[in-house]
Amino acid sequence: MKKAETPPPFIAFPHRHLLGIEGLSPPEITALLDRSEIYVEQNREADKKRARLVGRTVINLFFESSTRTRTSFELAAQRLGGDVINMSVMTSSVKKGETLIDTAMTLNAMHPDVLVVRHGDSGATQLLSEKVNCAVINAGDGSHEHPTQALLDALTIRRRLGRLQGLQVAICGDILHSRVARSNIHLLGTMGARVRLIAPKSLLPCGIERMGVEVFHDMKDGLKDCDIVMMLRLQSERMRGNFFPSTREYFRFFGLDYDKLANAKPDALIMHPGPMNRGVEIDSEVADDIGRSVIREQVEMGVAVRMACLEALSVNLAKAEGRA
Amino acid sequence: MKKAETPPPFIAFPHRHLLGIEGLSPPEITALLDRSEIYVEQNREADKKRARLVGRTVINLFFESSTRTRTSFELAAQRLGGDVINMSVMTSSVKKGETLIDTAMTLNAMHPDVLVVRHGDSGATQLLSEKVNCAVINAGDGSHEHPTQALLDALTIRRRLGRLQGLQVAICGDILHSRVARSNIHLLGTMGARVRLIAPKSLLPCGIERMGVEVFHDMKDGLKDCDIVMMLRLQSERMRGNFFPSTREYFRFFGLDYDKLANAKPDALIMHPGPMNRGVEIDSEVADDIGRSVIREQVEMGVAVRMACLEALSVNLAKAEGRA
Amino acid sequence: MKKAETPPPFIAFPHRHLLGIEGLSPPEITALLDRSEIYVEQNREADKKRARLVGRTVINLFFESSTRTRTSFELAAQRLGGDVINMSVMTSSVKKGETLIDTAMTLNAMHPDVLVVRHGDSGATQLLSEKVNCAVINAGDGSHEHPTQALLDALTIRRRLGRLQGLQVAICGDILHSRVARSNIHLLGTMGARVRLIAPKSLLPCGIERMGVEVFHDMKDGLKDCDIVMMLRLQSERMRGNFFPSTREYFRFFGLDYDKLANAKPDALIMHPGPMNRGVEIDSEVADDIGRSVIREQVEMGVAVRMACLEALSVNLAKAEGRA
Repeated sequence: MKKAETPPPFIAFPHRHLLGIEGLSPPEITALLDRSEIYVEQNREADKKRARLVGRTVINLFFESSTRTRTSFELAAQRLGGDVINMSVMTSSVKKGETLIDTAMTLNAMHPDVLVVRHGDSGATQLLSEKVNCAVINAGDGSHEHPTQALLDALTIRRRLGRLQGLQVAICGDILHSRVARSNIHLLGTMGARVRLIAPKSLLPCGIERMGVEVFHDMKDGLKDCDIVMMLRLQSERMRGNFFPSTREYFRFFGLDYDKLANAKPDALIMHPGPMNRGVEIDSEVADDIGRSVIREQVEMGVAVRMACLEALSVNLAKAEGRA
Repeated sequence: MKKAETPPPFIAFPHRHLLGIEGLSPPEITALLDRSEIYVEQNREADKKRARLVGRTVINLFFESSTRTRTSFELAAQRLGGDVINMSVMTSSVKKGETLIDTAMTLNAMHPDVLVVRHGDSGATQLLSEKVNCAVINAGDGSHEHPTQALLDALTIRRRLGRLQGLQVAICGDILHSRVARSNIHLLGTMGARVRLIAPKSLLPCGIERMGVEVFHDMKDGLKDCDIVMMLRLQSERMRGNFFPSTREYFRFFGLDYDKLANAKPDALIMHPGPMNRGVEIDSEVADDIGRSVIREQVEMGVAVRMACLEALSVNLAKAEGRA
Repeated sequence: MKKAETPPPFIAFPHRHLLGIEGLSPPEITALLDRSEIYVEQNREADKKRARLVGRTVINLFFESSTRTRTSFELAAQRLGGDVINMSVMTSSVKKGETLIDTAMTLNAMHPDVLVVRHGDSGATQLLSEKVNCAVINAGDGSHEHPTQALLDALTIRRRLGRLQGLQVAICGDILHSRVARSNIHLLGTMGARVRLIAPKSLLPCGIERMGVEVFHDMKDGLKDCDIVMMLRLQSERMRGNFFPSTREYFRFFGLDYDKLANAKPDALIMHPGPMNRGVEIDSEVADDIGRSVIREQVEMGVAVRMACLEALSVNLAKAEGRA
């Protein structure tokens, strides 16, 4: 653990929790992204460990399973020297009839410093954050927000294209069930990018236009001259009944293939939050396009962004405790 | 990790294992509670990490699932600097036909220092402790004992009321299936408190009076002038057939509400080992009573008590190894 | 963590991955075994922690469940000071339709240093190793190889008998499904031991004689004058249809009991990779024979061998990174 090389204190994010992107200012978002850059470099070194979170406890409280997000947060906390506990609440006392709030208050009594919470209900992390003493990071709540995903997407774009301002970003597919889309719409809008949504009507929430986005129902129209093509996972497991004739039909109209992609700018970046349904929302070759697909980079940025967020909130905790 | 501020060596608990409260002396119990006080304070600090267990391996070997107890032990070990491994044996080689003893001996061969064991059979942890070289902590075995729960209950009471001696403690509900009740009866009796049990006849073990307790079948009689009301979880999952007409009927006769509570002393503390069945054994408002419910405090004390127990046993290991 | 006593750098294993025993040279195998000896001693001390893997990330990526192997690798990494993440892919995004390669590439993007992979398909770890940037250790792939098991078996034998060269080793039972057998055949052959296989015809792969082994279908013949009796677990869960009249019949012909064992040398060692089916492939008393059964020792050696392998690969990573 190279304590000597620990970066200077990081103080530009004045919030106790990270529950969503909505309401964050451009300088706050920029501060998190700038800090993440330090961790991108660190994570590429042999010694990935720093002492910023030593003595702190992070609890991953996941009411929905998610291998990659949980792993990403776990790595982030470990690499900052923190202690991490995983709690998957599918297999826990919720079975014995304990309520969401009881579970959270029980954990709160154990003095964690940060609770990373994923939950199937929109607003669950907000509710928890009002009850506990520690910092809360929303790792996805229902179809509401998934702020660290939007931050890692922004970091990926910024590193590739040098800016967010003025870019044309198309978010395509199952917008209805997507907290990823919602957090990205907030972030990209705040940072001055233009967002277009491309989806069948059945997969668009009512009134989404009020979020300041353009809506398309045809991929070719929507992708025209885009800088970024952000595909979403078709969340069939959240759908009741037939949303579409078949996944094959879905791919024909809304799956990203080279033919549709030809309408975007020639060097448009291809993004996907994962896990991908290859052949459903994205053609397998397109997903692996070496020049343009940045899907693996998104995963890499995820660990760095989560380190920055954990650090920011623990700095704020330390201030609240009168220590920084 | 603040090694400089590490508390002085702790040597007053002369046992190799912690399998139950039965047989512990008042000074031994007091030594564990006194030591726990140090960790209560430490866990409220920003830097919760000490180096007492560095280089030691703790394995949580859970044959029954229990989120809160497992998490509490995991945190306790981490905060003392130990390495912790979780093994949930519902999803493991027991499926492949390996016996309890084979599982334990396999782990033993990996040189853990402490095995924290929860098992559905009374006596299972005793059996294991006779086979392994490491220290064993009983984290609940069948309806036998759950010693750290009784210690954390005692710590909670002692911090609130300043003593255990002479208190009137009512333990209410499903005594039959409760290792928590059994460990508390031992501890409270040893420390000079008076224990009353309040339960329907069908939820009382035969001959329980021989443990030196008073038995009541009516909440109002039993709660009269109590200092402590300790509710137990109704363990419906362990019951075969109908133990009672309905949970609603159960609540009417044995659930703690303000009406029944009025018979206890005005400042009587309300306790529950969790997870609670709100509306079954305890009214939701009573559970959350800010002045009198200490249910969250019990959880907090749990981490501290487990740190003291892990430390005590590892000190004894070091002595056995000729190192302290 | 006793950094001062850290053993000297270990440089004699020039491979990036450990995918199998096949192809390793005698000096390479000897180097790993010699290094393991250091860790056998260390793991018997109170302070089992060294700093060799500090700042490194190890991910246990298990597509098949295995408590003992996962725990053994987890302990090994922790005791070297590394960070460890467990990923059990039965309960993960594979459910959501993500492919094996996508899962591995996602993890790869998080910059682990070592991926420890178990998979049901022969060759899966080879495939992964060609895609990722980190080191890969095969923790068992289909019926192909399980190299750390063969290394721990060899270490156990070498410590007991002082050598591998010239020994007569009988591997008995379900050879067909056994990666353990395959890795042991490679290792023992490479190190100059003589291997005999004893199994019913239905549990022997075609053409296995080409691996330079002698084949027997009768235990008494095959065990004659053996130094080592290595029993295999009957993997009934991998068998379709009836492979044998009954497990009772199987035990009668191929289960190791004292009667059959009498044909081996009087001090022949009894081995089993675990978990055992007592009464199926091995008599319970024979399994626990204090003088001759080294089954628990095998488990102990497992942690040490995995520490040596993790260290070896991380040293090679450091060289590739230009750091050693």
